[in-house]
Amino acid sequence: MTQDTVSPPTQSSDQWSELEALLPPPPLPIGSYVATVQVGNLLHTSGVLPMKEGQVAVSGAVGSWDVSVAEGQEAARLCLLNALSLVRHALGSLDRIKRIVKLTGFVSSAPNFYEQPQVMNAASDLLVEYFGEAGKHVRSAVGVASLPKNAAVEVELVVEVV
Amino acid sequence: MTQDTVSPPTQSSDQWSELEALLPPPPLPIGSYVATVQVGNLLHTSGVLPMKEGQVAVSGAVGSWDVSVAEGQEAARLCLLNALSLVRHALGSLDRIKRIVKLTGFVSSAPNFYEQPQVMNAASDLLVEYFGEAGKHVRSAVGVASLPKNAAVEVELVVEVV
Amino acid sequence: MTQDTVSPPTQSSDQWSELEALLPPPPLPIGSYVATVQVGNLLHTSGVLPMKEGQVAVSGAVGSWDVSVAEGQEAARLCLLNALSLVRHALGSLDRIKRIVKLTGFVSSAPNFYEQPQVMNAASDLLVEYFGEAGKHVRSAVGVASLPKNAAVEVELVVEVV
Repeated sequence: MTQDTVSPPTQSSDQWSELEALLPPPPLPIGSYVATVQVGNLLHTSGVLPMKEGQVAVSGAVGSWDVSVAEGQEAARLCLLNALSLVRHALGSLDRIKRIVKLTGFVSSAPNFYEQPQVMNAASDLLVEYFGEAGKHVRSAVGVASLPKNAAVEVELVVEVV
Repeated sequence: MTQDTVSPPTQSSDQWSELEALLPPPPLPIGSYVATVQVGNLLHTSGVLPMKEGQVAVSGAVGSWDVSVAEGQEAARLCLLNALSLVRHALGSLDRIKRIVKLTGFVSSAPNFYEQPQVMNAASDLLVEYFGEAGKHVRSAVGVASLPKNAAVEVELVVEVV
Repeated sequence: MTQDTVSPPTQSSDQWSELEALLPPPPLPIGSYVATVQVGNLLHTSGVLPMKEGQVAVSGAVGSWDVSVAEGQEAARLCLLNALSLVRHALGSLDRIKRIVKLTGFVSSAPNFYEQPQVMNAASDLLVEYFGEAGKHVRSAVGVASLPKNAAVEVELVVEVV
């Protein structure tokens, strides 16, 4: 055995302190499903809503008179932070994220609203801001009729773990 | 080699008799796609509709005047039973299910209908009822504009197999 | 080492010449997400639109007065060709596709349009036409409220690679 195997990880937990300060408590589901499932080295989250202090913080259809693109972006960011909170809760530490694999964004959309990518960029940008190359992920963004609790956005995350 | 390696599985096929009695014939797709694909130890199903005796049994948008939440729940349950029937058909036996990994529920939704989780709980609850801890899965529930054959619900299932 | 290990692959690149002639340039995303991510032996694409010469070629809701089922099928085919172009770009050659695992089709749908499977069959048929048994995949087809850039169809592809 070499010393390498017992040396501290090259990624320090300190690097996440700024991100961790943003993370809400994990929005654990109530019911028969669970927040995360790991199979092999992939951790999957359930669909996550833009929760803040236990409430959906941005509701309604993006592109309608009551939800602007900027508010949709805030919703996407909140969804992602809640999803990362679930990931941290499951893994114990964000250090165990090897790579963000996939982000799926369902955007509650007003008729004739086609800017789902602009909405989801707020979440994608945040991933790359904090995780760098390891944050680059595949993504789908689609406009849906409605979401649970009238949330403006719902995301799913798939993460490769070490 | 120990005797353990040749002992019968601890899960008996008998445990599934009640569930198996509920399973419809597998709704095998007609066309270029297939009902299930296994890669490694994960079995993926195609999107499954609430079929009963060869017909979509619950059609229309949940939350509209013609499809109540209870009817949506019945649709979700039927989708799941059809999906499990595909899984059994692919694996030969439900004994080979190690864990239910993921359930995705697309709920055809009337405007202003936001109770997709209540609809999908009917399917999630059934998984935990029959599979216990191994039935706990991640889940996304979203409201969509419309589904094939005007089905009220469509589900996808990902299962870890032994 | 046997001669087998240095013999040419049984699949010749020539077999793809007809398909490759159809492939558009890969529609690489601009932004924080990426076109494809490979984890283990699975390659995932981002959501792909029906691009042609840098533009969305089929826009609007399928089943409305301005987008017929045939036009939706053309959109599905274009999405798939763009997705395969991303796959070829990532892998270097279509020879490295072992199997098409999963195709997800989001179809922008007019109210009361329920023929998402007919739309997506155009993509599924193309996969089986070119890849044979290896092209048989699981599929979900759902109708959504709207898609980025008002595209008529968006697809995701998961491919097993060698």
